[in-house]
Amino acid sequence: MQAGIFHGANDVRVEEVPDSKLKSPVEAIVRVTYSCICGSDLWSYRGLSPKDKGARLGHEFIGEVVEVGKKVSKIKKGDFVIAPFWMIDGTCLMCKQGSSMACLNGSAWSRGDYDGGQGEMVRVPFADASLFPFPVRKALSKKLMPALLSLTDVMCTGHHAAVCAGVSKGSTVAVIGDGAVGLCAVLASKRLGAKRIIHLSSHKDRAAIGKKFGATETVSERGEAALAKIKKLTKGIGVDCVLECVGTKESWDSAFGIAKEGGKIGWVGIPYGAPEIKLADLFGKNVGIVGGRAPAHLYIPQLLPEVLSGKLDPSAIFDKTIKLKDLDAGYKAMDQRKAIKVMIDLT
Amino acid sequence: MQAGIFHGANDVRVEEVPDSKLKSPVEAIVRVTYSCICGSDLWSYRGLSPKDKGARLGHEFIGEVVEVGKKVSKIKKGDFVIAPFWMIDGTCLMCKQGSSMACLNGSAWSRGDYDGGQGEMVRVPFADASLFPFPVRKALSKKLMPALLSLTDVMCTGHHAAVCAGVSKGSTVAVIGDGAVGLCAVLASKRLGAKRIIHLSSHKDRAAIGKKFGATETVSERGEAALAKIKKLTKGIGVDCVLECVGTKESWDSAFGIAKEGGKIGWVGIPYGAPEIKLADLFGKNVGIVGGRAPAHLYIPQLLPEVLSGKLDPSAIFDKTIKLKDLDAGYKAMDQRKAIKVMIDLT
Repeated sequence: MQAGIFHGANDVRVEEVPDSKLKSPVEAIVRVTYSCICGSDLWSYRGLSPKDKGARLGHEFIGEVVEVGKKVSKIKKGDFVIAPFWMIDGTCLMCKQGSSMACLNGSAWSRGDYDGGQGEMVRVPFADASLFPFPVRKALSKKLMPALLSLTDVMCTGHHAAVCAGVSKGSTVAVIGDGAVGLCAVLASKRLGAKRIIHLSSHKDRAAIGKKFGATETVSERGEAALAKIKKLTKGIGVDCVLECVGTKESWDSAFGIAKEGGKIGWVGIPYGAPEIKLADLFGKNVGIVGGRAPAHLYIPQLLPEVLSGKLDPSAIFDKTIKLKDLDAGYKAMDQRKAIKVMIDLT
Repeated sequence: MQAGIFHGANDVRVEEVPDSKLKSPVEAIVRVTYSCICGSDLWSYRGLSPKDKGARLGHEFIGEVVEVGKKVSKIKKGDFVIAPFWMIDGTCLMCKQGSSMACLNGSAWSRGDYDGGQGEMVRVPFADASLFPFPVRKALSKKLMPALLSLTDVMCTGHHAAVCAGVSKGSTVAVIGDGAVGLCAVLASKRLGAKRIIHLSSHKDRAAIGKKFGATETVSERGEAALAKIKKLTKGIGVDCVLECVGTKESWDSAFGIAKEGGKIGWVGIPYGAPEIKLADLFGKNVGIVGGRAPAHLYIPQLLPEVLSGKLDPSAIFDKTIKLKDLDAGYKAMDQRKAIKVMIDLT
């Protein structure tokens, strides 16, 4: 089979590798139909975070189950499934009491001997806990695939930001970030009933998707100018909920600057450049900081029915589709900000 | 009138000062009946944080209203009142939309030309917003005073820790700290329905009050040993809610160490020694950090009826009562950990 392999900074290749094979009776083999490239994949591509030469690539995919082990009971051969970016066993102490993102056997894909999502097939170590079947209706299926694919990571991650920040009916929200996650955070805020959604975006094309997803205002300024603008928009009060979808020191400074007293920052941007929070700066402001890696497997059952009905449609985040053989071009497009998020069509 | 005055480290004195006088029509004068010394008062007493020589002392008091300005409508002469540690105007933009701890005219007592609570009288700048009347029934009044006094700060602050950490029916809670706030946090957790309350306390007398307040287990170990004990008590999972009532780097390390994945840290310990949080350490654990300065004026209306009925009784935190003239002895007792919290009887 063909799979994406990391060879070093700016060097990803698609190569022939052994077909995925079951290693235990709780596993399944999935033939990938659609995959995508994540903003976090760019870190190693840009040489900013370490990754072993020869490692597989990709952690977001949907596909068809082509084989299941003898102890797999929920998932069946022929099922079409969503595979969230973090696999869990569903049976350990942590999973059983609800802390499944701390699953004792949990892992991202593409680590150790785990297959990556940017390849033709994937061995899924804990099939029943890690895969979510969806019905395929021929008339709709192709059109729905991008939205279904978004549930593997970015839509659930944007939703996590909104949930963590306590977005609810009538909230005033600011979303920091106009990548795929930031845009999904706008959509999630709208879905949860936010009254005002101020989107910090300095790219016109991305801001336009933000508006489509429900942003009521766009702030294209950056840094201090953005803070001043939002303070003005909120009469000096700040916003109830900040959705931090970037992860840099600058974005965190903005988040603290625009949260109102008693507000919450829901954060999902993987911290980059080790931003630190000084508690003393926070004490008088009662600003809560809630977030981290999204428990996508908890959110998929909530969001999937709305995606299937067409009520929730994050598909506009995918603005480029490639074939697997053109994987490097996909990385380049995202690296050079020529694409928000690249879908890989393996059908 | 007599009032406590700061003269420098280890030097507080009670001196004659001009009687409190109204300066504006929205003010009231309160004759203090009971006051107390706060753990945070010790910082300047120990020379660890700056305070002007000559500054007034104290920010927790209850008393009788002896005079009101012409524009005071809610509060009346003769009312007995609770004065929370943070005064608010109740009328500014921030107060009006619910962020009253960011009141544009908000302040602690004993700052600038504000009177302190450790004195015979206090001018209250925003009487209607900053004072909470309570009925005085002669048979009960004396006995209830310590509990009423605790509502000025520590009971509301302990409650804030529990609210911020999301303590609810069935929660497993760990309370870090066995000062008055930590003990009140135990009581607040019990009140909110926690199933398990693990109290980190290495002082037998304080741990005993913790047990009385609802702690189901006491961990007397410190540092790594405490973490290991709590991990064992929770089968390696950690606790749902950590109530951080200390504010040092060590206490924060403990808080992160014992919070379960997806748990919350409710924090009210004023940060000391500038603890910093590295977001990268948090990302995979989904631990929320929510807290800060408690909005006591929002909690008093909820807690006061239960104090009056005797259902909520934090009075055991006061283990020493002094007269105002013995103020320095009160500070010394708390500084030397010979008292948890000192009440000043001005009746």
